[in-house]
Amino acid sequence: MLSEESIIHKCIKLAKKGAGTVSPNPLVGCIILKDGKIIGKGFHKEAGSPHAEVNAINKAISNGFSVKGADLYVTLEPCSHFGKTPPCTDLIIKSGIRNVYIGMQDPNPLVNGEGILKLQKAKINVIKDIKVKECTELNKIFLKNIEKKLPFVSLKVAQSIDGKIALNNFNSKWITGTEAREFVQQLRFKNDAVLVGANTVKKDNPELTYRGKRKKVINRIILTSKTSKISEKNTLLSDKYSLNTYLISSEISKSGYRKILSELYKMGITSVLVEGGAFVFSKFLEYDLFDDIYILMAPKIIGKGISSFANFEITNLSKSKNLRFVYSKKIGDDILLYYKKSK
Amino acid sequence: MLSEESIIHKCIKLAKKGAGTVSPNPLVGCIILKDGKIIGKGFHKEAGSPHAEVNAINKAISNGFSVKGADLYVTLEPCSHFGKTPPCTDLIIKSGIRNVYIGMQDPNPLVNGEGILKLQKAKINVIKDIKVKECTELNKIFLKNIEKKLPFVSLKVAQSIDGKIALNNFNSKWITGTEAREFVQQLRFKNDAVLVGANTVKKDNPELTYRGKRKKVINRIILTSKTSKISEKNTLLSDKYSLNTYLISSEISKSGYRKILSELYKMGITSVLVEGGAFVFSKFLEYDLFDDIYILMAPKIIGKGISSFANFEITNLSKSKNLRFVYSKKIGDDILLYYKKSK
Repeated sequence: MLSEESIIHKCIKLAKKGAGTVSPNPLVGCIILKDGKIIGKGFHKEAGSPHAEVNAINKAISNGFSVKGADLYVTLEPCSHFGKTPPCTDLIIKSGIRNVYIGMQDPNPLVNGEGILKLQKAKINVIKDIKVKECTELNKIFLKNIEKKLPFVSLKVAQSIDGKIALNNFNSKWITGTEAREFVQQLRFKNDAVLVGANTVKKDNPELTYRGKRKKVINRIILTSKTSKISEKNTLLSDKYSLNTYLISSEISKSGYRKILSELYKMGITSVLVEGGAFVFSKFLEYDLFDDIYILMAPKIIGKGISSFANFEITNLSKSKNLRFVYSKKIGDDILLYYKKSK
Repeated sequence: MLSEESIIHKCIKLAKKGAGTVSPNPLVGCIILKDGKIIGKGFHKEAGSPHAEVNAINKAISNGFSVKGADLYVTLEPCSHFGKTPPCTDLIIKSGIRNVYIGMQDPNPLVNGEGILKLQKAKINVIKDIKVKECTELNKIFLKNIEKKLPFVSLKVAQSIDGKIALNNFNSKWITGTEAREFVQQLRFKNDAVLVGANTVKKDNPELTYRGKRKKVINRIILTSKTSKISEKNTLLSDKYSLNTYLISSEISKSGYRKILSELYKMGITSVLVEGGAFVFSKFLEYDLFDDIYILMAPKIIGKGISSFANFEITNLSKSKNLRFVYSKKIGDDILLYYKKSK
């Protein structure tokens, strides 16, 4: 007999299949159970396409089952409003589902408990808040968007053990290994945009494309100041994806940077992967405009070089930026350290 | 039925109980099995006291068993020479042990296969090289001593995510948390000496004592240059352990540093924990005179500050010091990253 938690856990794994394609929607996974047996599964694949609940119910039916009296498990509260697709609650009620198990409530003002109420009014038994912590992590992008009307911001720092992202002479294109760079491809796939400073573009002339197995053209944001001119011969401005490159200039201040993020959000960019350099990392840190940090650490010591947060300065250790370590993972010869901003 | 490997694994765990007290001897654990049942266990506790094999055999006998026809498992080849205690091979032969399972051969020139030969000549069945990799790691100190006639050198670096060991204004006594500092106490317990540079002593005035639950007075080495004078009021030169503080001056060169290590080894110091600062870390790295590195990384970003290897310099990434990542472990809010020198 599977526990409620373990089924929601399976729904979370299903939901993750939509990562990188659902934007601006949340990641949702759904499983239908009847007599203790899984009869249908579904997840939300992309904005505009059917929701996870619809996919799971249809799958059960196409598998030859009746969903009448069945149990529905879903990571996020079913929607009760008309968006690009009709409300899931209506379908659930019409289908004769008896119990609905929900990972977490949807804080979207258009839902926010309304879905649960609608189901309960139809005499459906609702069990909620089954895995709030895991479902919150699953939808970190969506939840930041709803709460702050800003994109979710991840910093990705590829550095040596001693925190260096480059040699002083910049004679160091890649610090981490092949596998770590493949992991960065996955990160890019999961984000709507990458962002780098103008200096990094001038010094490294990076491609900043998604070159993985799936199809994705990522938006490329170059943060410039009025004084920094970028040659039009630069890869980002001349390759076949140049239409997806945006040069954005900002004054160097918390409000200036925040305005940029706000503008990106209005453009439909729900998540940004900040890829350097040290100045940009330092400013996102100083202005508290980041959500999490991926440190990809090569088993190397560089010594003198460019520190990952070289432009960040404090006078007292109590003012250091404190993070929360979440997990580490070996990737090739390197190690990934994942941190979240501590609250 | 326990496998040979799993019993040697148990022997390794037993052997570790001697860590910090066996110096200059190896860590050894031993188990006696009869009819598939463990009848005696032993480990080597300290130089001059009985070897693991003796302890295990005596334990079996005091448990009321006869060891005649029994199997003996031991992490390291039994000794065949008279040291502070008589040869273990003689006792094993006399006891009527039938099979001897050995984790790894003892490279000590006084043993080096002689123990195995002696057992085989007495018609004892010897199964060797059962867990060479694990037993090599267990006795990393002893093996370095035997091979190089030098102490095993570990660097212990407490740093921020961005590789800083202090603020520029040194307004930062402890970067890592309580639990990480307790781990450092364990490291000190396992080493014969700690070593720091004169500048660190002048700036931090550290205690560098072992303050754990067990009894140990650790040797404290201060590396000085002729120009750096240390006040006699300094804790290391004035506290109750000051007799165990050694001021050693050296020219700053590979041969100079190597000479120091060689002298320490002649003093009976088999292992050294290098605790800073950046200059000393950089030199041990540059001169390739270290064996492993413990990075204790606090979930903090400091930005401008003293880099852990600030005095190490390379002109090309291919010349960076490459290490091998072995494991990571969460300690309190911090993370321990353990690296070995890559061969």
